Amino acid sequence: MTNIQVDELQHFMKTAFIKLGVSEQDAQTCAEILITSDLRGIESHGVGRLRMYVDRIHKGLIETNVQPQIVRESPTTAVIDGQHGIGMIIAHQSMQMAIDKAHQYGMGAVAVRNSTHFGIDGYYPLMAISAGMIGMSFTNARPSVAPTFGVQPMLGTNPIAFGAPTDEEFPFLFDAATSITQRGKIEVLHRKNDQPASPDWVIGSDGQSLTNPGEILQKLVSNEAALLPLGGSKEESGSHKGYDLSTIVEILSSALQSGAYLSALSGLTADGKETRFKVGHFFMAMNIENFVPLDEFKHNMGGLLRELRASRKMPGKDRIYTAGEKEYYIEKDVRKNGVYINDNLKKDLLHVKDILNIAELSLE
Amino acid sequence: MTNIQVDELQHFMKTAFIKLGVSEQDAQTCAEILITSDLRGIESHGVGRLRMYVDRIHKGLIETNVQPQIVRESPTTAVIDGQHGIGMIIAHQSMQMAIDKAHQYGMGAVAVRNSTHFGIDGYYPLMAISAGMIGMSFTNARPSVAPTFGVQPMLGTNPIAFGAPTDEEFPFLFDAATSITQRGKIEVLHRKNDQPASPDWVIGSDGQSLTNPGEILQKLVSNEAALLPLGGSKEESGSHKGYDLSTIVEILSSALQSGAYLSALSGLTADGKETRFKVGHFFMAMNIENFVPLDEFKHNMGGLLRELRASRKMPGKDRIYTAGEKEYYIEKDVRKNGVYINDNLKKDLLHVKDILNIAELSLE
Repeated sequence: MTNIQVDELQHFMKTAFIKLGVSEQDAQTCAEILITSDLRGIESHGVGRLRMYVDRIHKGLIETNVQPQIVRESPTTAVIDGQHGIGMIIAHQSMQMAIDKAHQYGMGAVAVRNSTHFGIDGYYPLMAISAGMIGMSFTNARPSVAPTFGVQPMLGTNPIAFGAPTDEEFPFLFDAATSITQRGKIEVLHRKNDQPASPDWVIGSDGQSLTNPGEILQKLVSNEAALLPLGGSKEESGSHKGYDLSTIVEILSSALQSGAYLSALSGLTADGKETRFKVGHFFMAMNIENFVPLDEFKHNMGGLLRELRASRKMPGKDRIYTAGEKEYYIEKDVRKNGVYINDNLKKDLLHVKDILNIAELSLE
Repeated sequence: MTNIQVDELQHFMKTAFIKLGVSEQDAQTCAEILITSDLRGIESHGVGRLRMYVDRIHKGLIETNVQPQIVRESPTTAVIDGQHGIGMIIAHQSMQMAIDKAHQYGMGAVAVRNSTHFGIDGYYPLMAISAGMIGMSFTNARPSVAPTFGVQPMLGTNPIAFGAPTDEEFPFLFDAATSITQRGKIEVLHRKNDQPASPDWVIGSDGQSLTNPGEILQKLVSNEAALLPLGGSKEESGSHKGYDLSTIVEILSSALQSGAYLSALSGLTADGKETRFKVGHFFMAMNIENFVPLDEFKHNMGGLLRELRASRKMPGKDRIYTAGEKEYYIEKDVRKNGVYINDNLKKDLLHVKDILNIAELSLE
């Protein structure tokens, strides 16, 4: 167990993508998106996924020698075919298109098909925020979540990300799966020697809850378990709302681009062989200056968020947070102390270092 | 207790708005939005609210002799000041603007301030669907929902509505509060002789749950109780996700239009007198033909929704629904059998009939 400084880790990841045949600029983009996840404390989507990308590229499931194609374009909209390239590069380019359109017309939306895993959803709204805009990003994913009254993994964890600038040191940034939890968190528990999952999170085929991370990960693959949508399994607790929100993300990530949806995203052929993921995304940018002056908007945001934080606390709780606040403090800490690398992750990184013949990282 | 046919009830509501000084066309809009709620089985937002509108107009809290003003406009965006008019008329006009902009440029978004209660959120996406578009509608509301780790009613029930056309007999239509439940449902239980609320729904100042609808309605007003966001009160069950989604709705409904937010929507002055509501809305339309041919989109939608419905059911459940499906069957039933009018609602309608001197409705 050790910590690696952010710059060193980011450089290592960039080098890995370059060794995989990615251009220097695109490799920089990939490394920046991955490190942003680690900086925000989202262990499940940062350097912890590097080996997965390497393996998938080596297997030909993700292409490195393709360019996203514009299928259709209008003043405010575009449909992009990712050509099964690296999701982060496709997504970065697509969000930039949405931002450029919003600069010109006020709004921009880009629908993407045939992409692959694009890292943390929250990165893309951050691009919009840097441009003085509101940004939104959606993606579908491998089936893992059951509909209300269902037990079969049908929907992906289908995250929603929404970001807006504020007059504070950090923006408002929401980035969350529409399931109560997501596969990545189960993987983290699994890597931490199978610490048990919450009984609210996963339902088995028999309608009973499952808590062993190893068992859950296996049964998600074999379709014998499913994550539960936000709101849980009952209408009384709002299950249908989480399920419907997840369906909306699935719609935005597939119907507008005639892309793959639900079972077609399993990553497996009918006879169980690994195949391309065909992930879809949807990006939106709104130029704030088209509505109100940016400074006025930021002031409105800050006032709203500070009023929420100042409201009356539950007995036993001394603080109310707003979206992106905790992550802001985590980032300060990670920039100072580096990214924590546990033994399993160390093994993965040494594997990547070894097969790609990278000299720079000293982990031994 | 009795049932009134849809046409008769809609005509009665239209007449009421005309008697209140509203133009025939706008009165038709109001009646249509209210009856759409009853048709979809959402008792809390239809004819059951008619008396509330009448009372508020009589008190001068809602104006009938004003027109929404365009504060700012760009190719795809607008900011509207509702001038404290009838929310349904303001919202109808604003959503139409968003649709017109989307026709021309692909996307349209309209932010509204100084509005009032606009009926069911789901009506406005239906307008977009009729125009071959995806529609979204958001509104803030009187503070009633606590942030995660809080007990004070800060956010409104802040609904999200999202609709898209399909190749089926009915569209996909999501319309739900970002709280687990909403004030209207508590009011319905209260009208039904105080049938108890779910213990998941409401938290008291002491952190304990409340279930008596009469007590809840009182304590929501006195700030001694709050509705819980989707995901409940704990982070483990996703409380922060519901809270953040509600905050996003609050942002869209206030920050882009420099409108009122949170406590400023209480409808009360500092010394407890009734005052204007200053509700904000946000409408968005996306023209599907800018992405894919409309028929192709509808086919994509239908395939996705049918696959969800056909998936494996929980033991004891024989059916999985998609958003708007249950409401479609309810509408068929209500069109045939009329709207059910219980004794409390009958009293309200007779009161409206009496004070507005309307002849047409035979309820006695």
